[in-house]
Amino acid sequence: MNKEEIRDWFKELQDDICGQIESADGSGKFKEDNWDRLNGGGGRTRVIENGSVIEKGGVNFSAVYGATPQKILDALKLDQADFFATGVSIVMHPSSPMVPIIHMNVRYFEMSNGISWFGGGIDLTPHYVDKEDARYFHKTMKAVCDRHHPDYYKEFKNWADDYFYVKHRNETRGIGGIFFDRLSAKGDIFMEDRWAFVQEVGQVFAPIYTHLMTKNKNLPFGENEKKWQFLRRGRYVEFNLVLDKGTKFGLDTDGRTESILMSLPPQANWVYDYQPTEGSNEAETLSLLKKGINWTRE
Amino acid sequence: MNKEEIRDWFKELQDDICGQIESADGSGKFKEDNWDRLNGGGGRTRVIENGSVIEKGGVNFSAVYGATPQKILDALKLDQADFFATGVSIVMHPSSPMVPIIHMNVRYFEMSNGISWFGGGIDLTPHYVDKEDARYFHKTMKAVCDRHHPDYYKEFKNWADDYFYVKHRNETRGIGGIFFDRLSAKGDIFMEDRWAFVQEVGQVFAPIYTHLMTKNKNLPFGENEKKWQFLRRGRYVEFNLVLDKGTKFGLDTDGRTESILMSLPPQANWVYDYQPTEGSNEAETLSLLKKGINWTRE
Repeated sequence: MNKEEIRDWFKELQDDICGQIESADGSGKFKEDNWDRLNGGGGRTRVIENGSVIEKGGVNFSAVYGATPQKILDALKLDQADFFATGVSIVMHPSSPMVPIIHMNVRYFEMSNGISWFGGGIDLTPHYVDKEDARYFHKTMKAVCDRHHPDYYKEFKNWADDYFYVKHRNETRGIGGIFFDRLSAKGDIFMEDRWAFVQEVGQVFAPIYTHLMTKNKNLPFGENEKKWQFLRRGRYVEFNLVLDKGTKFGLDTDGRTESILMSLPPQANWVYDYQPTEGSNEAETLSLLKKGINWTRE
Repeated sequence: MNKEEIRDWFKELQDDICGQIESADGSGKFKEDNWDRLNGGGGRTRVIENGSVIEKGGVNFSAVYGATPQKILDALKLDQADFFATGVSIVMHPSSPMVPIIHMNVRYFEMSNGISWFGGGIDLTPHYVDKEDARYFHKTMKAVCDRHHPDYYKEFKNWADDYFYVKHRNETRGIGGIFFDRLSAKGDIFMEDRWAFVQEVGQVFAPIYTHLMTKNKNLPFGENEKKWQFLRRGRYVEFNLVLDKGTKFGLDTDGRTESILMSLPPQANWVYDYQPTEGSNEAETLSLLKKGINWTRE
């Protein structure tokens, strides 16, 4: 396992995921943009728009390197060193409000001073929380985690709950999932073990999401559900632009704006002080957008 | 001039502006929400939705006080002191893409240690830059500035160019205007002089914007212009959530979220890597979203 192998594996993962998404979508095709980073490396952005199921989504691969940006050095309290970073980032906005938004990221970072780590995760943002889907999603994530370490699911599920919490709305972005960062070798866990785990997170993404696409894409909905979807997407925009560290870091360090902001939805709405009717499906969903729900118990 | 007089004047300004906007709109009415701040003070939020001209807008008054938030103390490198802050903040999103978005803010801040200042400004964000309107707007702002200090327009126009610059898009939010902050007594300029200037900025807002509403509200437009408007509103969202210091500060310090985010448009869209056709009105507008244009020359 070295950085070139990781990079090449991520690139193949992008191919694999795009193929599975296109197949489940049925009509949408990814458009590819290759880009170079001024100071080293580049990426392969793939965006799908106006498919049968996916209205707008991106599956981005990048591998960049060079002098470590000052912001990272400051955060780590380190002197100048070169860095290498590679990963795959995904956000999918379906056209139907009955299909959830999903986000996935797997990434590897190393520096010339020997520091290296993995990060990533998968989290689900249903416009309407379907409890069966939520249990399926979390149980699948737990199964992946459990194959690698008995503490992973609990730790990374809580991390996702905290990371995707939108304080100014007092709600979580969606039903969470798993989130992890700076996973290095530790105790009896080697980098190879971390890598095996990250690979499995990457591989489980497409089966999970194509299942949720296929299961929900033909459910009926009307104006009311579309209106709610646009408001929920507004919250998604708020999280991504106000709170998401990856977005902020990318914009701060002159990343490729169109690749970073592929995460934004095709349309988002804001209505002043919108309150769903008591007892409605919208109100039930809001009641489930909180930390600490155990979706794997039953 | 003391803080109570300033607060009361701002509150009357809110009344006056709401009246003039309602009158120019013809059918929209402001809805009022009074709110209390947990640690002292509160505000009067007024939002208009689905008027004849204004699709969504807010004219907010607030007067808050208490222990100075740690973030301000850190920024100013000061020890604990009480603060008092009052102001009026406005954002208007018209339904027609031919009517510009506008933003205005006037504010006063003082601390128990004797520090005090004014801040604020007015800036215009046309979906399509109309050069005649741009010149009218900047010449009006210059006239206001010139009545108070020969350096004000140049200084505050450049400040707006810098403040409303969206680095990750390499464009300005709109055609700028004036922006100023931390205006205290200095040399032969007394706080009373600053206050007279800030009052005139507040008073000129409604005549400017009702003129632009009335002049442009009946201009024809089609699907193409609506599509562009939604994309430009997307950029507005990006500025407000990624860069605007007032928004960030408000969300960070537990301000009233619905009052802060009244600035967001009713609908915003994102299309991956959208490029306007060469020679189109959209391309011309983009070419004018840059710093350093002198709109008062002719």
